[in-house]
Amino acid sequence: MLGQKIGRQSVSMHNPPYMITGSTIVGPMEGEGPLREFYDLVLADDLYGEGSWEKAEAKMLRENVKRAIAKAGLTMGDIDVILAGDLLNQLISTNFAMRDLDIPFLGLYGACSTMAESLLIGSMLVDGGFLNYALAAVSSHHNTAERQYRFPTELGVQRPPACQWTVTGTGTSVIAKTGQGPRITYGTIGRVVDMGITNPNDMGTAMAPAAADTLMAHFRDTGRDPSYYDAIMTGDLGIVGRNLVIELTRQNGFILSKNYQDCGTLVYREDQDVHAGASGCGCSAVVLNGYLYSLLRRNMLKRILFAGTGSLHSPVSYQQKETMPCICHAVAIEAE
Amino acid sequence: MLGQKIGRQSVSMHNPPYMITGSTIVGPMEGEGPLREFYDLVLADDLYGEGSWEKAEAKMLRENVKRAIAKAGLTMGDIDVILAGDLLNQLISTNFAMRDLDIPFLGLYGACSTMAESLLIGSMLVDGGFLNYALAAVSSHHNTAERQYRFPTELGVQRPPACQWTVTGTGTSVIAKTGQGPRITYGTIGRVVDMGITNPNDMGTAMAPAAADTLMAHFRDTGRDPSYYDAIMTGDLGIVGRNLVIELTRQNGFILSKNYQDCGTLVYREDQDVHAGASGCGCSAVVLNGYLYSLLRRNMLKRILFAGTGSLHSPVSYQQKETMPCICHAVAIEAE
Repeated sequence: MLGQKIGRQSVSMHNPPYMITGSTIVGPMEGEGPLREFYDLVLADDLYGEGSWEKAEAKMLRENVKRAIAKAGLTMGDIDVILAGDLLNQLISTNFAMRDLDIPFLGLYGACSTMAESLLIGSMLVDGGFLNYALAAVSSHHNTAERQYRFPTELGVQRPPACQWTVTGTGTSVIAKTGQGPRITYGTIGRVVDMGITNPNDMGTAMAPAAADTLMAHFRDTGRDPSYYDAIMTGDLGIVGRNLVIELTRQNGFILSKNYQDCGTLVYREDQDVHAGASGCGCSAVVLNGYLYSLLRRNMLKRILFAGTGSLHSPVSYQQKETMPCICHAVAIEAE
Repeated sequence: MLGQKIGRQSVSMHNPPYMITGSTIVGPMEGEGPLREFYDLVLADDLYGEGSWEKAEAKMLRENVKRAIAKAGLTMGDIDVILAGDLLNQLISTNFAMRDLDIPFLGLYGACSTMAESLLIGSMLVDGGFLNYALAAVSSHHNTAERQYRFPTELGVQRPPACQWTVTGTGTSVIAKTGQGPRITYGTIGRVVDMGITNPNDMGTAMAPAAADTLMAHFRDTGRDPSYYDAIMTGDLGIVGRNLVIELTRQNGFILSKNYQDCGTLVYREDQDVHAGASGCGCSAVVLNGYLYSLLRRNMLKRILFAGTGSLHSPVSYQQKETMPCICHAVAIEAE
């Protein structure tokens, strides 16, 4: 028997793969946030002993992959493939991390949606019989992202209120054909949605329509009501984008407010002054592989819908006056 | 029954998916090359009626996807997913093309290996039962790549002899559960290989060890001898890299010279003065979806091993004195 497609955008697993481990490393500022106890390692400084932030990000990703493999009681040779990505041009954090890991590698780019994209593809490849163990891994680093997407970090440019703060952090999930842990039961593949937003300092507003589109596709395709889930978690919309998702889905008859939260609202304390919340590949990755995974393993959550959101613009497209295409991929993760 | 993993890096399809269509669009210079008759459309100018090269690249990708769907006798609603990527930061050509296509989308980054990566993942998802039709699509544009990776195009910097020329071109394959055409039977997932090369003007030398690594993994995992294939085609190593692959594999007991060619040596005539040959995502994409696909459909080739090669460096990693991590993914495509 095989997995199958359901509806326009979703897939159901035939023998749902297990998420047997989640591992996270975060930067110092994230380690001062409310989820501190759920991270595996908090770095003392954001250079992690390296000579550049880019090298620090690659090291963080690499070391966390090794930790995830060890936590799962596996060795590198057991891992059939790693699906990974980050925010940097040409995925250099990922590519340089992979250089030191002897694991077949498939590079993904979904901006901040990459954690969900990697879980979705990894689960299909495991359920399809091709792999026993797949890793899904992503990273982001505040300082590498800031200088690539916005301004030189040292310039100290004042940030507008709708701005989010890119998380310094990395998360790795070990997906397995057999094992212990919650199972990935359904996936919903996103479409690119572009509502004409041009302000890269307000990514929550830009990404919210894509998030709403994928969540509603998931409910339609699976026949599940939002209330089926204990928690519906979008990736990194922050405070502004979260409220917009609630409104957009409400207009279409879906009531999300009771069990819906956004990972970007959970990473920092309000007095950490990050404005509209957290963002970056690492945001949803550390919330999923730290906080949510821990609650799933303790049976404090039984069914979650994890929806990674990404803004697919670039500094070049912004300079060329283009609007921001966005995407959202979702996976249903359910404890038995 | 399911597909399965064989050896360390390879997978075999249980019910090998069909490559039912290949479609290509190329720029004017590629249209003057030896493979002209195999391209579906040759552009009259490399702006394709747009205001920037980036927009032209996105249009080329988008229009070719539409053409591929029409050639296959399908509509957009039949396509379950598109796996796509390009060379630009944040994959803007792809993301902007996707904005106008109502198809679930998974973004990939494998530099110039992306055509093989997208075929490999697409085939596994179709064989795994999740999809009926998947598209694999990539693009590159000489002028967008040149100014991003090297120098402003208008500067007219003299190019060293080992330099390759990024192809302006796009290729789309339609992968189907049932249909007519050659079938994708095996895939080999690459590992990152970095032999310490630092010269981005000699990508063939940097990528050759990764190509040799994946080709040898394929032969070991499948038990196939290189002579099994009518043609073994690497992605875009050019003249310099091709010779190095022959030597590296020969040292390990594999004789490739008789049936081995590189896509980068086929796109331009010698008097087009591109130095070491062609490169870019579009290079292997237009050779595969134009020339090779045509020969497979005419039974002039029966069995090919298509091995996309990518250099995963970035201008930032180069400036930070890093070496060049490279990768190669391979798929076996066999006519019945």
